Amino acid sequence: MTGALSAQQAQSLKEFRDFADLRIAPHADSWHRAQRTPPEVVRLLADEGLLGLPVPSRYGGGGCDAVTLGLLAGELGRACSSVRSLLTVHTMVAHAVARWGDRALKETWLPRLASGETIGALAVSEPGAGSDASAVTTRLVRDGDDWIVDGHKKWITYGQSADLFLVVGQSDQGPTALLVERDTPGLRTELIEDLVGIRASMTAHVYLERCRVPGAQLLARPGLGVSHVVGAALDLGRYTVGWGCVGILDACLEASVDYASQREQFGSLIKEHQLVRRMITGMYTDARAARLLALEAGRLRDEGDPGALAATSTAKHFAATAAGRAALDAVQIHGANGCGSDYPVQRYLGDSRVMEVIEGSTQLHQVGLAEYAFQERALRRSIR
Amino acid sequence: MTGALSAQQAQSLKEFRDFADLRIAPHADSWHRAQRTPPEVVRLLADEGLLGLPVPSRYGGGGCDAVTLGLLAGELGRACSSVRSLLTVHTMVAHAVARWGDRALKETWLPRLASGETIGALAVSEPGAGSDASAVTTRLVRDGDDWIVDGHKKWITYGQSADLFLVVGQSDQGPTALLVERDTPGLRTELIEDLVGIRASMTAHVYLERCRVPGAQLLARPGLGVSHVVGAALDLGRYTVGWGCVGILDACLEASVDYASQREQFGSLIKEHQLVRRMITGMYTDARAARLLALEAGRLRDEGDPGALAATSTAKHFAATAAGRAALDAVQIHGANGCGSDYPVQRYLGDSRVMEVIEGSTQLHQVGLAEYAFQERALRRSIR
Amino acid sequence: MTGALSAQQAQSLKEFRDFADLRIAPHADSWHRAQRTPPEVVRLLADEGLLGLPVPSRYGGGGCDAVTLGLLAGELGRACSSVRSLLTVHTMVAHAVARWGDRALKETWLPRLASGETIGALAVSEPGAGSDASAVTTRLVRDGDDWIVDGHKKWITYGQSADLFLVVGQSDQGPTALLVERDTPGLRTELIEDLVGIRASMTAHVYLERCRVPGAQLLARPGLGVSHVVGAALDLGRYTVGWGCVGILDACLEASVDYASQREQFGSLIKEHQLVRRMITGMYTDARAARLLALEAGRLRDEGDPGALAATSTAKHFAATAAGRAALDAVQIHGANGCGSDYPVQRYLGDSRVMEVIEGSTQLHQVGLAEYAFQERALRRSIR
Amino acid sequence: MTGALSAQQAQSLKEFRDFADLRIAPHADSWHRAQRTPPEVVRLLADEGLLGLPVPSRYGGGGCDAVTLGLLAGELGRACSSVRSLLTVHTMVAHAVARWGDRALKETWLPRLASGETIGALAVSEPGAGSDASAVTTRLVRDGDDWIVDGHKKWITYGQSADLFLVVGQSDQGPTALLVERDTPGLRTELIEDLVGIRASMTAHVYLERCRVPGAQLLARPGLGVSHVVGAALDLGRYTVGWGCVGILDACLEASVDYASQREQFGSLIKEHQLVRRMITGMYTDARAARLLALEAGRLRDEGDPGALAATSTAKHFAATAAGRAALDAVQIHGANGCGSDYPVQRYLGDSRVMEVIEGSTQLHQVGLAEYAFQERALRRSIR
Repeated sequence: MTGALSAQQAQSLKEFRDFADLRIAPHADSWHRAQRTPPEVVRLLADEGLLGLPVPSRYGGGGCDAVTLGLLAGELGRACSSVRSLLTVHTMVAHAVARWGDRALKETWLPRLASGETIGALAVSEPGAGSDASAVTTRLVRDGDDWIVDGHKKWITYGQSADLFLVVGQSDQGPTALLVERDTPGLRTELIEDLVGIRASMTAHVYLERCRVPGAQLLARPGLGVSHVVGAALDLGRYTVGWGCVGILDACLEASVDYASQREQFGSLIKEHQLVRRMITGMYTDARAARLLALEAGRLRDEGDPGALAATSTAKHFAATAAGRAALDAVQIHGANGCGSDYPVQRYLGDSRVMEVIEGSTQLHQVGLAEYAFQERALRRSIR
Repeated sequence: MTGALSAQQAQSLKEFRDFADLRIAPHADSWHRAQRTPPEVVRLLADEGLLGLPVPSRYGGGGCDAVTLGLLAGELGRACSSVRSLLTVHTMVAHAVARWGDRALKETWLPRLASGETIGALAVSEPGAGSDASAVTTRLVRDGDDWIVDGHKKWITYGQSADLFLVVGQSDQGPTALLVERDTPGLRTELIEDLVGIRASMTAHVYLERCRVPGAQLLARPGLGVSHVVGAALDLGRYTVGWGCVGILDACLEASVDYASQREQFGSLIKEHQLVRRMITGMYTDARAARLLALEAGRLRDEGDPGALAATSTAKHFAATAAGRAALDAVQIHGANGCGSDYPVQRYLGDSRVMEVIEGSTQLHQVGLAEYAFQERALRRSIR
Repeated sequence: MTGALSAQQAQSLKEFRDFADLRIAPHADSWHRAQRTPPEVVRLLADEGLLGLPVPSRYGGGGCDAVTLGLLAGELGRACSSVRSLLTVHTMVAHAVARWGDRALKETWLPRLASGETIGALAVSEPGAGSDASAVTTRLVRDGDDWIVDGHKKWITYGQSADLFLVVGQSDQGPTALLVERDTPGLRTELIEDLVGIRASMTAHVYLERCRVPGAQLLARPGLGVSHVVGAALDLGRYTVGWGCVGILDACLEASVDYASQREQFGSLIKEHQLVRRMITGMYTDARAARLLALEAGRLRDEGDPGALAATSTAKHFAATAAGRAALDAVQIHGANGCGSDYPVQRYLGDSRVMEVIEGSTQLHQVGLAEYAFQERALRRSIR
Repeated sequence: MTGALSAQQAQSLKEFRDFADLRIAPHADSWHRAQRTPPEVVRLLADEGLLGLPVPSRYGGGGCDAVTLGLLAGELGRACSSVRSLLTVHTMVAHAVARWGDRALKETWLPRLASGETIGALAVSEPGAGSDASAVTTRLVRDGDDWIVDGHKKWITYGQSADLFLVVGQSDQGPTALLVERDTPGLRTELIEDLVGIRASMTAHVYLERCRVPGAQLLARPGLGVSHVVGAALDLGRYTVGWGCVGILDACLEASVDYASQREQFGSLIKEHQLVRRMITGMYTDARAARLLALEAGRLRDEGDPGALAATSTAKHFAATAAGRAALDAVQIHGANGCGSDYPVQRYLGDSRVMEVIEGSTQLHQVGLAEYAFQERALRRSIR
């Protein structure tokens, strides 16, 4: 499945795979149980240069292409969806800064984000605003050169540990995006425990009470916070989440193949049972399809093809729903052991549930992807 | 849906429903998080006579019919699958004693089981023997009038708190069933934490090291431990688990209807979204069908109809898989709140996973139920 | 599964089953290929009194209860969905006349409909009005005591052979229902061939050009044609279609069990293959659930329970979608023989497709059934 | 989705698309109804060089790569699955000759197959031997230099019109493959009508009674008829069938998008209904994934990668099951019009059913594809 990669991409993949297998996967269950990502892990990722991989090299990043970023997200996702989520939110912030920040903002933050000295998190969703970002109620009021921010952000991945928040709220010019530092007076975070999945992801409430933020921290013009800033971030977020789901698929497949190869029932290895093989075939087929869709999205991104948007959403939607099916089947193949915690499949089940909700829920995609089908058909007919 | 019940059954249902709503449901999430069923809850069930409901009245039980037992399992299942599991394993043991114990054994244990003074648990499965009970390796060796028991039982629901274990092992006459008391020297239990579901169910390892058990504790003849004793217990277990899944379906439906009626998105209540309605219709339809299948199984049991066996397995299989679908959709309807723990749907998701594994996994039923189809067709053709 | 029937219902079921097995099933494939129901078959049904079974006995009908009508629809549906469709449309018209006709109209038509001397058909849908009956454009204009009818009805089951049409059109008082006789000048029908299913159902266009219809043929008041007349007819139509789908399920199960019991592949009967057993288990489980839902709907209808409406829609929706799954699996089990026409399963596949479209499509039910869930929950909460 | 094609492949795709749109698609429904492929159509394909496209150029063929052949199969499949089937069986025979024929056989037949002067068909399956080719019972007996062939082949696509049959039977050395000409005395064909799909495919019985076939017509050594000859042909057959299913997916998507864009219901275009969009999104996503899997299989074939076998089966399995889903949904979106024959979706439904049975049924793939998962995992672990 890797023949279509460049030599360098293939080499990167090998390194990511080894890193994930050796440094992440063996600990993922314990982080999951502890509901924490240890700071050393974040440090490790930073030191390996993995957090700044897609940041342009002139800001100290790796300047990698989208395919390579995807391969990293896939391998991290195979090992630990929480750690993959860190990559996702951090690169979303870096991408938004690179795309919508002015020169000063880029020079201030991109080097720190690239090095991992600063960890970024997206602070958009609120108790009453999830898939519909334009429904945020956080208020942004100008006060001289500063902004005063009041609001309550919820479900902020790595909110409990991040250093820099991309906050979106309503100003009198409409949805507006600001970078807010953790140590801003009035900002307080509170860990949300007992999530169904990505339990090590430090997901938190972020409370902002009369937080004063310098005007220089503004991203894009006021009013473009959702349509432009969140839009760009979300597109990248879907891309790495989609790849993360490819990783979950791979993980479910590996765990199921291994278990079915050693577990006996009714006198034979369960890998001989047609019903088990059927489930494994489903995972195998879906994993291959999901990977190709994700690679296609990556290539179109790298080519600057306008079709990348549709390809990215398609990849995320397919991979997330397929990961959901795979995790259910992996638990089922493991029987009682799938219900216990000695095997990682219970973790995959919970993680896959989150994947169908975030970065555009399955239902949002079911409604939205059809639009591309209508557009492409109209285009085809007009060419004729 | 209750028109087909007798007046007394309908009255019992009302009482069970109130009990579940008032005494169980409000606490289920906290027991789930604590991974414990408080002893007071067991005491409460016992004091209400609920644990002895199906035990014949001459032994101090409620002597209720199968339909009534099912209604209880359904209401407990709606509130808390762990508590419903207690009913399941306890009544399995009582049923096995009533069916296969000799007079002395019945007179010794049934009154205590009926009153809840003694809590029973089924100790059949082992690390290497789940759906295939005949694969147990626990050894039973005669020593004078006693049996010496050595083995390791795993996944024993309420194993951490039960007083009396129905243990099945291999004697030189084949699979053999014994009642073993908790305080037997050499018996030790160890809680299994972090299950995917029924997290308050005190599920445990039961280690038996040279446990000496009086011969009077034997159930049925040696050699009949699986075919007769476990067979009868499992049939009843499937029945109450099936009803428990009806309860999960009801719970998912209630939670989803309530949430969809108050949550807004994109400017309207999500109950107006076709994709949400479709999921709710699925739960509603499945819940109705599952309840009718469970009622049918109950009636056939009460009539002593040989078709009860097929009806019971059908009800369990349908209800368990439908509960699985419903829980997934309930989580999805709740969006981010479905991934958090402020709403009970995450609990339903985990509980439903267990339901597709225990008392005959979904795959076991997929293979086994077909046999009834072949038998019934052969019978129909022979009559013709 | 028949224990819950009264002795008379059970006896009727036996007679229906024999009739279907001996007089209908052996010919269904040839009628399907000929795309015609021979007039003798209609005569046979009439002579057996089956077409007037639910018509009140004072009008010469059988005066049977809803459960018995359902059992008949189920057995006919098992043998031939086209013939079952005849029962459906004919009883819909008779029911509408009995419910909404004035005394004279009832005395005129019910005896003829009961005897089968007159065959009725519902002429509601049009090229642009299917699930949404209120969108019909057929015009009804008063002219003295008569109505002048102009319109084009399409997809009229048994439209090519029926004698009496229940036509719904727009008058200046809104949707209005009239009985229109076939020999009315200006009425012309045209067979629609090559349907995907119910290919023997004589489905036709009905063209009405300045048809003059006596005012006495009016059903209910002008304006109530959809809300009352079509509403009542459709409710009964859903009921018999639902039962017809139970019949398709039974037919798929029987065909699959028989085939799997004699077809060998890779050295064993295919009934030994887990993947085949899984499909048969699915049909078996769904057939049992669908039958119970349909019986429940019948009982609630017979009891005049207002819950009958929801129960009927639930039964239709479940049975139609389950029949769709069963037919696909039956074709698959039959392999190449399922793609050919020597076995009836190809017919079941096409018939099941029609069932998911008529009498409220699957999508209409997915949106609409949820409403009952919301209502029942509100009711439950208000009682508390 | 075409960015990954070479310029020449993209140009070929454009030509194939125009050819399919102009010369095939407009007539497909009438051929379907007539249950015949007119000889002029075969002639047209031959004249355009499409039947010899993958035959090596030194034998007069187009010498095209696998990707280009796949693109052709996809476009023909979008227009008419019967015509695509002609491509499939004809190229299977040509491929088997090229791969397993000796020089004389190649020189005799490849030019004629390349030009379409001779049309080839695969005559392997029998009434009792479908997916399991080694179960064929046709007898091959040596008589001097000739073979005497006796047997009954069934489900032979284009068997009614093909000129040359690749017949597999049992010789005393095991399964053996021969080329048998139509005009061989003792060979007789009989059209099989009323198939569920590919109704224009001239599928036939082929009866062979004491057919004398020159020994020179042997393919590979006796005994290798299934393992080598059929194996190679089947692999190519799966490839073009997989692409044909991509075509069905595209066709379902196009038809559904067009219909949903012009059909109104309840006051709005049905493309605005979430449940319709959900179905279209499903087709769109699956069509993209299926195309990528098929392209991947083509590339690996062109590179001679041993992974091509797994990739081809994966593509066929995914595309066939996805086409099945898409066709069901396309019919459903079309409502009553989907049940009629004015729109092509009924045809797609029947065609998709055949696709899940031929060239390895869905069940065969569910069992078999898992093997690749086990092998790849073992390989990965051994490398580590």
